Amino acid sequence: MPDGTSAVAAPVLVRQDRDAVATLTLNRPAARNGLSLALLDALTAALREIAADPAIRCVVIAAEGPVFCAGHDLKEITARFADPDGGQAFFADSMARCAAVMQAIPALPQPVVAAVQGMATAAGCQLAAACDLVVAAEAARFCTPGVDIGLFCSTPAVALSRAVPRKAAMEMLLTAEPIDAGEARRIGLVNRVVPAGALRDEAQALAARIAARSALAVQLGKRTFHRQSGLPLAEAYEVAAAAMVENLLAEDAAEGIGAFLARRSPEWRHR
Amino acid sequence: MPDGTSAVAAPVLVRQDRDAVATLTLNRPAARNGLSLALLDALTAALREIAADPAIRCVVIAAEGPVFCAGHDLKEITARFADPDGGQAFFADSMARCAAVMQAIPALPQPVVAAVQGMATAAGCQLAAACDLVVAAEAARFCTPGVDIGLFCSTPAVALSRAVPRKAAMEMLLTAEPIDAGEARRIGLVNRVVPAGALRDEAQALAARIAARSALAVQLGKRTFHRQSGLPLAEAYEVAAAAMVENLLAEDAAEGIGAFLARRSPEWRHR
Amino acid sequence: MPDGTSAVAAPVLVRQDRDAVATLTLNRPAARNGLSLALLDALTAALREIAADPAIRCVVIAAEGPVFCAGHDLKEITARFADPDGGQAFFADSMARCAAVMQAIPALPQPVVAAVQGMATAAGCQLAAACDLVVAAEAARFCTPGVDIGLFCSTPAVALSRAVPRKAAMEMLLTAEPIDAGEARRIGLVNRVVPAGALRDEAQALAARIAARSALAVQLGKRTFHRQSGLPLAEAYEVAAAAMVENLLAEDAAEGIGAFLARRSPEWRHR
Repeated sequence: MPDGTSAVAAPVLVRQDRDAVATLTLNRPAARNGLSLALLDALTAALREIAADPAIRCVVIAAEGPVFCAGHDLKEITARFADPDGGQAFFADSMARCAAVMQAIPALPQPVVAAVQGMATAAGCQLAAACDLVVAAEAARFCTPGVDIGLFCSTPAVALSRAVPRKAAMEMLLTAEPIDAGEARRIGLVNRVVPAGALRDEAQALAARIAARSALAVQLGKRTFHRQSGLPLAEAYEVAAAAMVENLLAEDAAEGIGAFLARRSPEWRHR
Repeated sequence: MPDGTSAVAAPVLVRQDRDAVATLTLNRPAARNGLSLALLDALTAALREIAADPAIRCVVIAAEGPVFCAGHDLKEITARFADPDGGQAFFADSMARCAAVMQAIPALPQPVVAAVQGMATAAGCQLAAACDLVVAAEAARFCTPGVDIGLFCSTPAVALSRAVPRKAAMEMLLTAEPIDAGEARRIGLVNRVVPAGALRDEAQALAARIAARSALAVQLGKRTFHRQSGLPLAEAYEVAAAAMVENLLAEDAAEGIGAFLARRSPEWRHR
Repeated sequence: MPDGTSAVAAPVLVRQDRDAVATLTLNRPAARNGLSLALLDALTAALREIAADPAIRCVVIAAEGPVFCAGHDLKEITARFADPDGGQAFFADSMARCAAVMQAIPALPQPVVAAVQGMATAAGCQLAAACDLVVAAEAARFCTPGVDIGLFCSTPAVALSRAVPRKAAMEMLLTAEPIDAGEARRIGLVNRVVPAGALRDEAQALAARIAARSALAVQLGKRTFHRQSGLPLAEAYEVAAAAMVENLLAEDAAEGIGAFLARRSPEWRHR
């Protein structure tokens, strides 16, 4: 267990590695895995460690207990309304730390798979939306209910609106109504829906399949995907074509293509 | 009834307010609710009034008669081909006024729900696509048939292509074939499909639920949603995080979070 | 048969014209229609000819044999790893030529319909994704399996990520798993799925319906669609409103609107 999470008796985030896959488990089940500052910081620290860890080639984000993640820790927030500045400095810091985690996921070299077993609310829904892939249990629910508490889910909307069509995002944000796993898959927020008992195995298997590929190819590809996605077409092709050439000149492409043509299994250098 | 629509015996647009919801009803059923200049101007005026009306917290756009909206008024257009400039000045003015309405809807502080009971054609389809949410009757149809009359639906394409996947938009634009309400929901143009008899009640109920929330949170959220949607990820998070802090410092968030934690109903200041 | 493709006994690309529709058929079935440089260049030449050919108003891209297109020609690539520069110059040239074809399709004045009868892999999937519309046989499959050979499908991702939701694209790219025609339609990559025996007729009929419209309206509309799609809303409406005025001042709009109001068939000048 890495330093950042083992220092306390009940770590808010647990990391377990298997088959080149690091699973980060939100571990505040009694607090519905609310994103306290401690948990946000633990996520940032864990992602930073993983980014520099060549033994890890894919990440799963999972959660302990019946709730995936209930979003920001509301008790932490209400405690600061009494601050001399009404909480402004604390809120700005909290939002910056949360946005940092949400941006660290697409920026992480390794792909990230969310394994959502229960309700994912507000910043919890955002956490799932920010991941590259989402596997959901049939009981999973997704909800951006900020309007119910006078606090529109504006930062969750950033990740949500980049994952699903505009009107689907608006409906979740304006109505606060949860959607189930099937509806989440229909609109593009979820890749796969599995029975509850199969969730961890499915997420681990999916991550392990990704981890078995050339890390160089996967990481260059993920980085290029995010770089090109907002660019005009001609610029996007310039970025992507340059990435293809770089990828072709790396040893793993020669090995992979050679293995494919010879109908044998490749032996990746960059694992 | 506001000034802009009550001046004539049969107003082209009717406004009715209930439960903080303003319903704007296109009222040219004999002309298939074609967007004449008078109707476009009435929409602009009504939206401007509503933007400044703190008593209104959500808007429904509905239509009288069997057709939701047949798009531009073609007779108005053909009458101007004989102008000395071939109609150029008139067409430019018409398109500018129409585009102004279509941009006034996402720019309106309050969310806008379209209630589509029948065929929505060309700029009529655009009108629905420009709304934040769309509720459709089972009999609703959506169509961008400009190519059938030698006039590609280029301005409708602006709203349509921001609501649905690219190839779905292209198919509607290139084939001119209408899609039904279920297909419109499948591609993301419609949020909910209901029996014809339930349409007005469903749209009103949806709007009333939105209107019951903190106007400050809803309006800040809608504005932020549209601001961030085209930005690169880091800029989008900056905009959205600043909105979250602003929202948290407003009274309604303290009230809403406090009410939630105390399991009581919130009393919004900004209703 | 045009010059560019008739010079060899078995042309890599075959062009057949019917009813103002040019069908370009990939004709390397024994090589799974791999995009060799010769085939890429033949596509570029054919698209350039068609762009200048007023008799052609729609294009179908189809393929001979059981496979639609297997992507780049891997044997061409492996042969160049032994180059003094490791293949760099060749790979850069190949990627530029491929990206040119993929950008020539949206840039082509005429709409392009892909008719996908079998597996579309890597740059073959990209080729389909780059088309304006896709008709697929029930047996069609779509796959971006670059990670299986150590070469992430970064350029295919450019076209794919502009056609389908982000997580759906990521799943195809990271898992290398093929999706069937129905799933491809679900995520927005395919417009229509038809029985295998009906594919060519359906694609031809769809193209012929498009070709029967005013070429001026269709081509102005396609160009405007792609121009506006990445712009902020206000700029998009400026571009599209200007296109509407230009379209209205062209003879075909007057003819089309007049014919519509008189309930007769239009006689396009720009056919």
